[in-house]
Amino acid sequence: MQTYTPPLKDFEFILHDVLQVQSGDTPGYSDLDAEFSGAILEEAGKIARDVLMPLNAIGDTQGCTLENGVVRTPDGFKEAFDIIRDGGWTGLSADPEYGGQGMPFVLGTAVSEMSLSANQSFNMYLSLTAGAYEAIHTHGSEALKAKFLPKMVTCEWTGTMNLTEPHCGTDLGMMRSKADPVRDGTYKISGQKIFISAGEHDMVENIIHLVLAKIPGGPAGVKGISLFIVPKFLVNEDGSLGARNGVACGNLEEKMGIHGNSTCVMNYDEAEGYLVGEEHKGLRAMFTMMNAARLGVGLQGLAQASVAYQNALDYTRERLQGRDVTGAKNPTGTADPLIVHPDVRRSLMDQKSFIEGARAFLLWNATLLDAGELSDDKNAEGLLSLMTPVIKGFLTDKGFDMTVQAQQLYGGHGYIEETGASQFVRDARIAMIYEGANGIQALDLVGRKLASGGGKHVMAFFDLVKTFIKENEGDAALKADFLDPLKAASKDMQAAAMYFMSEAPKNPNAALAGSTDFMHLFGHVALGLMWARMAKVASEKLLEGTSDAAFYETKLATGRYYMARSLPETALRLARINSGAEPVMGLDAEAF
Amino acid sequence: MQTYTPPLKDFEFILHDVLQVQSGDTPGYSDLDAEFSGAILEEAGKIARDVLMPLNAIGDTQGCTLENGVVRTPDGFKEAFDIIRDGGWTGLSADPEYGGQGMPFVLGTAVSEMSLSANQSFNMYLSLTAGAYEAIHTHGSEALKAKFLPKMVTCEWTGTMNLTEPHCGTDLGMMRSKADPVRDGTYKISGQKIFISAGEHDMVENIIHLVLAKIPGGPAGVKGISLFIVPKFLVNEDGSLGARNGVACGNLEEKMGIHGNSTCVMNYDEAEGYLVGEEHKGLRAMFTMMNAARLGVGLQGLAQASVAYQNALDYTRERLQGRDVTGAKNPTGTADPLIVHPDVRRSLMDQKSFIEGARAFLLWNATLLDAGELSDDKNAEGLLSLMTPVIKGFLTDKGFDMTVQAQQLYGGHGYIEETGASQFVRDARIAMIYEGANGIQALDLVGRKLASGGGKHVMAFFDLVKTFIKENEGDAALKADFLDPLKAASKDMQAAAMYFMSEAPKNPNAALAGSTDFMHLFGHVALGLMWARMAKVASEKLLEGTSDAAFYETKLATGRYYMARSLPETALRLARINSGAEPVMGLDAEAF
Repeated sequence: MQTYTPPLKDFEFILHDVLQVQSGDTPGYSDLDAEFSGAILEEAGKIARDVLMPLNAIGDTQGCTLENGVVRTPDGFKEAFDIIRDGGWTGLSADPEYGGQGMPFVLGTAVSEMSLSANQSFNMYLSLTAGAYEAIHTHGSEALKAKFLPKMVTCEWTGTMNLTEPHCGTDLGMMRSKADPVRDGTYKISGQKIFISAGEHDMVENIIHLVLAKIPGGPAGVKGISLFIVPKFLVNEDGSLGARNGVACGNLEEKMGIHGNSTCVMNYDEAEGYLVGEEHKGLRAMFTMMNAARLGVGLQGLAQASVAYQNALDYTRERLQGRDVTGAKNPTGTADPLIVHPDVRRSLMDQKSFIEGARAFLLWNATLLDAGELSDDKNAEGLLSLMTPVIKGFLTDKGFDMTVQAQQLYGGHGYIEETGASQFVRDARIAMIYEGANGIQALDLVGRKLASGGGKHVMAFFDLVKTFIKENEGDAALKADFLDPLKAASKDMQAAAMYFMSEAPKNPNAALAGSTDFMHLFGHVALGLMWARMAKVASEKLLEGTSDAAFYETKLATGRYYMARSLPETALRLARINSGAEPVMGLDAEAF
Repeated sequence: MQTYTPPLKDFEFILHDVLQVQSGDTPGYSDLDAEFSGAILEEAGKIARDVLMPLNAIGDTQGCTLENGVVRTPDGFKEAFDIIRDGGWTGLSADPEYGGQGMPFVLGTAVSEMSLSANQSFNMYLSLTAGAYEAIHTHGSEALKAKFLPKMVTCEWTGTMNLTEPHCGTDLGMMRSKADPVRDGTYKISGQKIFISAGEHDMVENIIHLVLAKIPGGPAGVKGISLFIVPKFLVNEDGSLGARNGVACGNLEEKMGIHGNSTCVMNYDEAEGYLVGEEHKGLRAMFTMMNAARLGVGLQGLAQASVAYQNALDYTRERLQGRDVTGAKNPTGTADPLIVHPDVRRSLMDQKSFIEGARAFLLWNATLLDAGELSDDKNAEGLLSLMTPVIKGFLTDKGFDMTVQAQQLYGGHGYIEETGASQFVRDARIAMIYEGANGIQALDLVGRKLASGGGKHVMAFFDLVKTFIKENEGDAALKADFLDPLKAASKDMQAAAMYFMSEAPKNPNAALAGSTDFMHLFGHVALGLMWARMAKVASEKLLEGTSDAAFYETKLATGRYYMARSLPETALRLARINSGAEPVMGLDAEAF
């Protein structure tokens, strides 16, 4: 049976000791003292643990069903949705003008991590709504915002994103869905969209679809795409629901995982739609939503790794099998617990050191997002934009790997659905694919983000690393275990960036052949930086004297593992990057 | 829809050009000329492609069902089983004395790879039978062999292996199943076994269970385990079937994959059993079966990678999305095929270079098995025994990774069950777990095999590498691209072996902490050696002049990719190994 323990202490450590959000300049951060944020996270953790986690396996087993156009969610989902709505959790980071609580994104990120760990499929109904809210909030007219946002903030209505069509995923320029203008200023939307998460379900009275479509006569390709709101039920002037709109779920997909979320084929047949933002500028508006969504998907990688690890850890403590090679640890029992074995320990440390490093990395990025949005800090925004593909691609690749490692610790029992280890693997798998498959993230990083602003964002990242190392190199406790490996890894990353800069103008394939490697290289350096920062705080706490020495010593040991065993991967990634385009493109496409 | 193309040309290249089996000294090898083996492989390939592949997705979707003790296999399985049985395919490598065709194992390995690619779940009914046959053939009395083997060779009866119990998997010393001696020389077997593949099904008239159990009063732990034959139906003296024995399937497990194979809980209630080999020597007898089984499981890793790659490759040729960054390749179409993109190409090359290297590695090991069994070549046997955990652990870890990479190339369509990419991932996952989880393989390699015979087997491996490099270092075509990387990788492996030898006596955890890394390091060096050998043959063929230059040039380009981009992983593995026990064991078990 799957269980979940909210990582409250780790949130406190990262938010208050490492990132020190309570003393940040960003508006709203001064409220984030340990007591206030601790109270919110504790309550959110209870809901994750007690309400969402028990529904996770049920969602996987039952899945969603479509009957006569109605999608039924798994038993208990509707009741859980009511609890979360009634508790006011849906509008945590939303604009108070539309009924939100206006809290910083960094707090919402911690709350989301817990919901995602406890039940990814369920949480997607909420996070898609938040994404749709964000796009309308940023690009919609005042009238559209007033009409749709309040009920989306409360999740009386949920939202969706409609991009993909059967013949076009990444390449949205080939889109066929069309939007014919009507004299009253509305549009008639027609076409078929696929892979629409939460596209239809029975937990709310209305669903607000955000749909990309082309207005006839507009520019070809992605420059002719516009964004529309298409509600499932039309909304009258007084806010009451009117006629059913021309949109329906045509089919539910059978998927590898996230069975509790309805993945719909959506058919639009002259459905009434309202333009969001300007004509033909739809892709930019949708990307507002996709950047936040990509952070959220990176968070899914972490969240699934975290819950899979917790369950596997429990199993390695309970399952008795074999003896410690250095002497029995449970001499009166029939065998020692699995956790005594070095290769089991290696796997647990891989998982633990990734999870805690990734958590710090994500929360740091959430503070950058807050700084960009609330303080209009352009440097923070630029750095976040550079790291967004790393968060999405690296954290979901690694997050999936970690769920596989967790499953492996169960032996044969991990392959049996009963233990729940398989669900974490199957659910984690989607995060590598949606919101831009990880190869696209790598392309975005190397082909666009790296050189953006003349390379100033990546220089800012290198400066952060260099400054941290310089400021702390007198600290003997940090030097050998943390600063030296970080310096070496950062040099590998600089060498890779140099290679791209010198080779790409001559041969773009030379850079793109190494794009996935660079995304991972960057991810490791970023987690290495986070571990160095965490180690600094932990060793200061231990020097000061603390009643909780065990917590900080565990942090240091976990960080040392990451630096000694995970970070050296940067050299391998650099070697691959330096091998250039030739090995990758050496074969003609026909020769495969 | 899943498809499969038998890799006949690659088999021919490896068997006849690289391994040159036709001129080998091993008995039976002189028959293996290209015409003979080509004819067999072509026929076997047709069955894989036309009979087994079409049932693969059906098996996944329908699974097996248990009703009133009867297990029903998916639609079409029984008919396919008849076709294979009637074609005489079940006894290819079996002893002619019992109706087999006595062909070398190397040919059977190529045949199995195709069956496994086409339908792993189905093939398991056959391979379990072959394993049980092997154990009885090696350890059983003449009477038992005469009674059971002929019908197992023809697969009129299938076989199973019964080791695991609910509380004991790897640690068989805790086994509770017992075997009470009866006055007539038989035993009464009682207990519960779990995870029994092919434990019960509707395709044959009898099932021959091989069961480990303890005879009361014997030594404690694994030294008190004996091996028994327990037939589902008792067999009369005239070979006809008698009474139903006291064994039944109590439940079918819900699994992540291999749904077409019945994974049974088997309950033994005073079932009549016959001792195989000596009392209390059962584990050794079972291990005969497990070593061959481990090669077979390594083959599953390769086989799933191969079929997943083929299907993904087709998709990347057909799916139009985006444009080649260096200029449109399909200018009249709406977009270029996926295969033009460098990161897609990188993934395809990862897969292709692994698959072809692994295929050569497995077939080479099959020749070692033949040399050991048919020529009593102790050196071949020792080398094979050293490499068996590498084959099982490395090839299944990598095989699974490759199916995940293949699935990734489909984007969202890979997550939908309809395309079949998910099944390859889910089916491949089990191979990392059963027949000794991969952590156990690593332990076996580092804790036992490496030092066995005073380390002479690993020295023999190093000698093979050194000799190959020395003999060919004058060849400029090979030196920079193949020999230099192989030399560097082999040095990493030697350094790791040295580290273990110097550290393990002082601190066994220092060796075990790096055991999984060493298994992968070894695997890469082995595949590097195979690629160097293949490159040598390919460049000789090109020098000689050949009508098929494209094939050999493709081999060289694929090999160069492996050497440039996969082999450098050895340095990372060595760095991890050299970091020793401290990072891995630095945290107390309680501190996690």
